[in-house]
Amino acid sequence: MPYFDSASAAPLHPVARQALQASLDEGWADPARLYREGRRARLLLDAAREAAAEAVGCRADELVFTPSGTHAVHTGIAGVLAGRRRVGDHLVVSAVEHSSVLHSAAAHEARGGSVSEVPVDRSGAVSAAGYADALVPATALACLQSANHEVGTVQPVAEVAEVCGAAGVPLLVDAAQSLAWGPVEAAWSVLAASAHKWGGPPGVGLLAVRKGVRFSPQGPADERESGRSPGFTNLPAIVAAAASLRAVRAEADAEAARLRVLVDRIRRRVVRLVPDVEVVGDADRRLPHLVTFSCLYVDGEALLHELDRAGFSVSSGSSCTSSTLTPSHVLRAMGVLSEGNVRVSLPPGTPAEEVNAFLEVLPGAVAGVRERLGVTEPPAAVPEADSLELDALGLRCPQPVIELARAIARVPVGGTVTVLSDDEVARLDIPAWCAMRGHDYLGESPRPTGTAYTVRRQS
Amino acid sequence: MPYFDSASAAPLHPVARQALQASLDEGWADPARLYREGRRARLLLDAAREAAAEAVGCRADELVFTPSGTHAVHTGIAGVLAGRRRVGDHLVVSAVEHSSVLHSAAAHEARGGSVSEVPVDRSGAVSAAGYADALVPATALACLQSANHEVGTVQPVAEVAEVCGAAGVPLLVDAAQSLAWGPVEAAWSVLAASAHKWGGPPGVGLLAVRKGVRFSPQGPADERESGRSPGFTNLPAIVAAAASLRAVRAEADAEAARLRVLVDRIRRRVVRLVPDVEVVGDADRRLPHLVTFSCLYVDGEALLHELDRAGFSVSSGSSCTSSTLTPSHVLRAMGVLSEGNVRVSLPPGTPAEEVNAFLEVLPGAVAGVRERLGVTEPPAAVPEADSLELDALGLRCPQPVIELARAIARVPVGGTVTVLSDDEVARLDIPAWCAMRGHDYLGESPRPTGTAYTVRRQS
Repeated sequence: MPYFDSASAAPLHPVARQALQASLDEGWADPARLYREGRRARLLLDAAREAAAEAVGCRADELVFTPSGTHAVHTGIAGVLAGRRRVGDHLVVSAVEHSSVLHSAAAHEARGGSVSEVPVDRSGAVSAAGYADALVPATALACLQSANHEVGTVQPVAEVAEVCGAAGVPLLVDAAQSLAWGPVEAAWSVLAASAHKWGGPPGVGLLAVRKGVRFSPQGPADERESGRSPGFTNLPAIVAAAASLRAVRAEADAEAARLRVLVDRIRRRVVRLVPDVEVVGDADRRLPHLVTFSCLYVDGEALLHELDRAGFSVSSGSSCTSSTLTPSHVLRAMGVLSEGNVRVSLPPGTPAEEVNAFLEVLPGAVAGVRERLGVTEPPAAVPEADSLELDALGLRCPQPVIELARAIARVPVGGTVTVLSDDEVARLDIPAWCAMRGHDYLGESPRPTGTAYTVRRQS
Repeated sequence: MPYFDSASAAPLHPVARQALQASLDEGWADPARLYREGRRARLLLDAAREAAAEAVGCRADELVFTPSGTHAVHTGIAGVLAGRRRVGDHLVVSAVEHSSVLHSAAAHEARGGSVSEVPVDRSGAVSAAGYADALVPATALACLQSANHEVGTVQPVAEVAEVCGAAGVPLLVDAAQSLAWGPVEAAWSVLAASAHKWGGPPGVGLLAVRKGVRFSPQGPADERESGRSPGFTNLPAIVAAAASLRAVRAEADAEAARLRVLVDRIRRRVVRLVPDVEVVGDADRRLPHLVTFSCLYVDGEALLHELDRAGFSVSSGSSCTSSTLTPSHVLRAMGVLSEGNVRVSLPPGTPAEEVNAFLEVLPGAVAGVRERLGVTEPPAAVPEADSLELDALGLRCPQPVIELARAIARVPVGGTVTVLSDDEVARLDIPAWCAMRGHDYLGESPRPTGTAYTVRRQS
């Protein structure tokens, strides 16, 4: 059964499993104890730290193990913000960071700090100039992911690190999505990552803080992990995490080249096989194993169920697949279509046949969802009026866009359709639809109930 | 090789290992996802939560999994303090709590909150009256361990819960040391525990918060575990933790009875086999598997090494076995001897033969350490003067007490010996030595260098 959501979690790497087994026997004791079981545990911990530090590209005493990538990010951001409190309370993040970074930023703001969000282009990439603009004398820390977790776009970390370095601002890099493929080749100050993204077990994150970066751990004191990660050391998982990182790295270049071919195939063929689809994310500067596309007039949750029934596990940034009714903040920041969104992230070892099978199944799955939603090609109608207003209140994604698509032929070229909607997603998907269809998006205006989105027909 | 430090960590229970294996295959995916691997993970997570809640004695929706017992305590204390901020900022803890509680209290104080420490008696037990005295209208939270981790004394949790309940103050119970033996039979509000103490894997803590307790999670938001424990769910370890809790509970009563006999044997025989030893902790109201004693004129670290060489792994609350040069805060709060301290905590299944072997080895190990320290019976000397002053500056535990023991015969009955020491431990161990030897401890006074401790000879 093809599982295509390795960006979310991956099955345990065989090497990780082996290491976990062995260290359950050898590494269950407290590494802080003086007796033989403790000394044995300490040796395993030291070896795991050396191995992880080598893979990260830092000194062993710069790296601590945390209970998750999220903890690494939370701790890293809070520690630098507190350590550099005298410099100021300004934090810079990109608009497309992982929620752990954005939630840290929100917590910082709630405590009275200030935050700037660096925007991204339509491919999801920030620019070094964007960071240069955001930095101010009071900036305590800047954060940037190495690559985006939803669309796979690789960020210009080295350039941003240079800009930050010149301003004397430390840069925290969330390397969760890329560390399996190689070290972050940039002058980062703090780095966070998560073992279960590279086939390690859950329960292990990495936090590396370069010597010289002012860092003040927050929360209650604890003597473990240089005072940066409280709680009893999760040694078997740490040993497994370090072993699997080394193992995936040994295979990384060959596997990246192989998966890149498969992802290229999806990128090329999905737009030919499925009508009205937008592949998002940078076509070249991207993770080798990840591709994301959105399908117009499609309910993301229904499509996921359809694919699941056909045996394919993928994820989605569509609003209807989350509990919040808002689409992925990444797609929103990019300004791209969010409806019918599908993220495919191939685990190492994915055979070409599974990708081919997916491409065979996908068109029918999309067509099935569209059929059930009553999506039909708008008939060539005689225009009824120069302007129309549609009441789409109460309708949820993708219905408002479907209504708009149906109505556009009812006005002449140059005429306008206004959609009244109370669905948050319309704000993103109506402009995205206009861009895909070649119509003009004229903007939105608030109404007593909902928002009016106006579109001018261009063809 | 006998491992007698289960209060610190225990090897994985066979049931936990089995469950871990199975859930590495079945439970690696993100339980928040909609596809089949995610749904399977969700089922495992729900079942583990049900099982753990049943063992704790709470509703499943009151319980979350954290990355460790320490995280459960930190989160629990911070969450209630924030949730009840309007009531006040006063926190009550016992003097013998686990460091995770005391460090939370210190962090609370550093943020401007106030903390009261409830004292313990010489057995290490608090009293309900002690809590009643400490509660004030501004008390937001009280904390009490179910049983002490260093000396095994079981606390009067039900009585303290009653006092707290009457005052409308929630009680957080750190049940780390006792949950394997049974639920906490008291009207607690919040409960914390740690899986690796009951043969579960490291990486899993429990935090239960009763409905109706005002709780406001601190730190960056995260949607996992009801917003109370951020980071990717460590599902395989959670499943293993829940399975092993159920397994140890099934054996708990029989095993407790069996280990209690072995611990009773140690308690009785150690005072007969080893001269100048003090068994600490309550003789009756105690954990079934744990016993602690201190040996006069003994260097704790040397004794641990001696026992380790003989194949026995135990721990110690002596200052010389920690990095801080201060003895265990538990022994200090109890006012008992800390030098030559040994904690024996028997893992389930410990055979009687191992305990017998330990009792055979111990007297020689203690004697060996004492011999190397030059401890000899003080010769019956002719008193030299009515009062003597010893310069023990620069000497570390147990040397100041050894010097005192040597000198006491040099003054007549009724005469005094004053020990000048800059070792923190002297403050605890000189009065404890007086109590054991039947001399009067007259008190301490500061000197330009160090502190003077004065003792009156009584026999």
